[in-house]
Amino acid sequence: MTGKNFIGFSLSGDGNKTFQTFNPIANSENEQLYFEASDQEIEKSITLANKAFQEYRSCSGKEKANFLNAIADEILALDDELIQVYCSETGLPEGRAKGERGRTIFQLRSFAELVTEGSWVEATIDTAVPDRTPLPKSDIRRMNIPLGPVVVFGASNFPLAYSTAGGDTAAALAGGCPVIVKSHPMHAGTGELVASAIVKAAQKTGMPEGVFSNLNSSGIEVGVALVKHPFIKAVGFTGSIQGGRALLDLASQREEPIPVFAEMGSVNPVVILPKALKERAESLAKTYASSITLGTGQFCTNPGLVLGIESDELTEFIQSLGHEILQIEPSVMLHPNIIGAYEKNRDKALSQSNVEIIADYPKDVQPNYARQTITTVKGKTFLENPTLHQEVFGPFSMVVQCENTEELERIISQLEGQLTGTLIADNREAVQYPKIIAALQNRVGRLIYNGVPTGVEVCPSMVHGGPYPASTDSRFSAVGIHSIQRWVRPFSYQDWPNDLLPDELKEENPLNISRTVNGQLIQGKL
Amino acid sequence: MTGKNFIGFSLSGDGNKTFQTFNPIANSENEQLYFEASDQEIEKSITLANKAFQEYRSCSGKEKANFLNAIADEILALDDELIQVYCSETGLPEGRAKGERGRTIFQLRSFAELVTEGSWVEATIDTAVPDRTPLPKSDIRRMNIPLGPVVVFGASNFPLAYSTAGGDTAAALAGGCPVIVKSHPMHAGTGELVASAIVKAAQKTGMPEGVFSNLNSSGIEVGVALVKHPFIKAVGFTGSIQGGRALLDLASQREEPIPVFAEMGSVNPVVILPKALKERAESLAKTYASSITLGTGQFCTNPGLVLGIESDELTEFIQSLGHEILQIEPSVMLHPNIIGAYEKNRDKALSQSNVEIIADYPKDVQPNYARQTITTVKGKTFLENPTLHQEVFGPFSMVVQCENTEELERIISQLEGQLTGTLIADNREAVQYPKIIAALQNRVGRLIYNGVPTGVEVCPSMVHGGPYPASTDSRFSAVGIHSIQRWVRPFSYQDWPNDLLPDELKEENPLNISRTVNGQLIQGKL
Repeated sequence: MTGKNFIGFSLSGDGNKTFQTFNPIANSENEQLYFEASDQEIEKSITLANKAFQEYRSCSGKEKANFLNAIADEILALDDELIQVYCSETGLPEGRAKGERGRTIFQLRSFAELVTEGSWVEATIDTAVPDRTPLPKSDIRRMNIPLGPVVVFGASNFPLAYSTAGGDTAAALAGGCPVIVKSHPMHAGTGELVASAIVKAAQKTGMPEGVFSNLNSSGIEVGVALVKHPFIKAVGFTGSIQGGRALLDLASQREEPIPVFAEMGSVNPVVILPKALKERAESLAKTYASSITLGTGQFCTNPGLVLGIESDELTEFIQSLGHEILQIEPSVMLHPNIIGAYEKNRDKALSQSNVEIIADYPKDVQPNYARQTITTVKGKTFLENPTLHQEVFGPFSMVVQCENTEELERIISQLEGQLTGTLIADNREAVQYPKIIAALQNRVGRLIYNGVPTGVEVCPSMVHGGPYPASTDSRFSAVGIHSIQRWVRPFSYQDWPNDLLPDELKEENPLNISRTVNGQLIQGKL
Repeated sequence: MTGKNFIGFSLSGDGNKTFQTFNPIANSENEQLYFEASDQEIEKSITLANKAFQEYRSCSGKEKANFLNAIADEILALDDELIQVYCSETGLPEGRAKGERGRTIFQLRSFAELVTEGSWVEATIDTAVPDRTPLPKSDIRRMNIPLGPVVVFGASNFPLAYSTAGGDTAAALAGGCPVIVKSHPMHAGTGELVASAIVKAAQKTGMPEGVFSNLNSSGIEVGVALVKHPFIKAVGFTGSIQGGRALLDLASQREEPIPVFAEMGSVNPVVILPKALKERAESLAKTYASSITLGTGQFCTNPGLVLGIESDELTEFIQSLGHEILQIEPSVMLHPNIIGAYEKNRDKALSQSNVEIIADYPKDVQPNYARQTITTVKGKTFLENPTLHQEVFGPFSMVVQCENTEELERIISQLEGQLTGTLIADNREAVQYPKIIAALQNRVGRLIYNGVPTGVEVCPSMVHGGPYPASTDSRFSAVGIHSIQRWVRPFSYQDWPNDLLPDELKEENPLNISRTVNGQLIQGKL
């Protein structure tokens, strides 16, 4: 480890400003100094990315797949060093580090598979009709091509799977876009190690220098400079609403506005219907106590809001949830900023009028450890106080006791956009609540039945996104192979000579991909 | 004709402000008064749209197809009245009116076919693996669902095909989104007639009131109020860069930012390679004189910029183009604002240093008729003066004489985003200019070989869009069935009971659509 930036293939630490990461369990800074990227280093990384794009955009699917698979191999080769640095910077346990590494590898290999197969470009061909009247019809062929250099902001809560070589980076590289990562300052070491793996992979597989750079920064200046630069064509971000919105505003105000896909906050409402509550209040309380505290509540799909209709069973559930959550040992949060924000937002929620505290871990906790908290309010209180709608990122949840189904529906309709909505119901019960389900669907990106929102499967049918502020653009997902669509655009060739067409659109279909030809999906030659 | 707004199914003219349309051939206002929508009417149309969405979003593909086909039928039933009003408001000839009506009908029926067939929702199913270790895998199913009420701004240059029932409206209705049209003030009569057809169709096919409204407005206030309203979830626009950018800024600054698809300006560069010029300078001049003046130059794909390398043949081409274009009779523009802007922008271009005027229609023209104009500049002049890069909307084109291939490439790279780029080349010539082609591809949405950019085929492989400012989001097209993607978002169901799933995702696949199941595209049951 050097603490330096990767500007293309070179390590570089020209800046005067340095910073350190933090070990939340030891409650002390880690030793390594990291060099904040200088203006010259930022400019150089962008110039290299722009130059690399001219070559990288024409790389074949197989070449890109080799690169992605090599990244996965090099990450695995980092072995224990990566796991140790990861744990020292996050307080997360080794099991989680390894699990997240597995997810990162899986994502890289999934995209490698996608671009090897090649049909993801959605090739569409409409052949010419020269004798059409009144005008002849041209031959038109369409496929997806990359947007250009993409800036990726690493997430604090997923130092591997949504950071340096995470979902945004893997999707952008698969799509043919060079990537500049603005590394998360609180896991800059993990970032540097992963970046070194990407650079090694790029060199081994003959990728152009500039296809990837990794910039350190403890403040906002580096990110701002990247997003404002005319050579940058898109932005990926996972983090707070405040951070994501700031980037969206910057990108929208550019002379050439560019797309920002930010996956941001969510309270992930869980609706518990009466019969389900009657049948299994106890076991639901156990399940949810565990989901709320999973990873110290540091998941974007953490269930921060539970909605039910006033009843003895709901009261019983609330008490059980409070009881169960106090059985769980408090755990450490990622870094001082996150624990600070948790305590501030939690205290703000607790201080609102008519909020009843059901559970608040009563014993002393170690520094940077979070006290899990359960509160409850009446539906009317919730409706009247927008502060209660805000996310408290951490092991915190609020149960809202609605007066009746109408109030429940009104509350759901007034929620901001969410990543997920969960319905807990008895088998024949859900069908009686079509309006509740419709209202919930309208506010979320994914509906879950009788489960918990935590746990985001990486598969083609997953939507990880949703109406604002769950994401800045609900038309895309941050997870799964379709997330490549964020970084590509459709492109048409009209009457283009066959030998000058990219392989994906040639008559003879040399890549043997699936193509829509005159409205029919076919494989093989034209 | 009443001059009133359609607020849902009702004609309404509560406002105090009225305006008239203009007959550019007669050079006088048309008689009919149009009532500018009042604040109450705007609010009512939005409330109705939001309410209608709750029902319309669940309409089946067949129901939506019936509605779309009924709109086409009702537009045809307007018969000669529509054609006459269209011509009186635009100065465009009857043949063009009928052609554009045909295109509008074709678009409506194409979307009807798309939603009848149903596979456009891109259903993707990953089935459960309950015994997977370490964690069981959930059943996850994904499909596209509508965003919500969409506001469409009619285009001035396509009163039918890109206005009231044009591409944006047809795509949004097909996707399940109610539409509020902000009618273009210069063809408010055409707008009212088409709106009456849509309302009749909605009533005949049992659609909810509010699925469509049509608002008149001669200023910007109505549009601003619509775009700022929290119930509006997306915006479609075709028109000037200034107008589209203003809407994008408004939408981005909302508390909940919403997507804007604006198709805006373009100079549609045409690159003529040396050998092609040597072989057919004369015929190219004829072809391009005709393309530049088609529809009085009022197409967004009008070739406003021709790029070549200095040579005797290029000089010959420029002289021929100037000669040919003066053989064409001047024609009328759509309305006084457009002719005013044309003259202003043309004069601005002509007054720049080192611009040589090759052709400027020398005789007197009738009011509202445009003088076709050809200019030429050296590459160096063009590179140094960004004013020369701006679109002059009308029968105007500028030929840039580049010193060499490098300067040609530099000029292309420095162009703003464009809808189209055209390459004119001899059969074995193009392959020698890979950098020119790559640079051109990077700036445009569609590449044309040995043709003209005017003429936008409506078919699945068409991309009508491109890097900013050709459009506000190059990841979408304004033309073709894929344009539905602007108004829908992916949505996932996790472990959802089969009877509560939409038909598109049910085990038994009752709609018999193509679905991607565990990575394989199949039709039929699970």
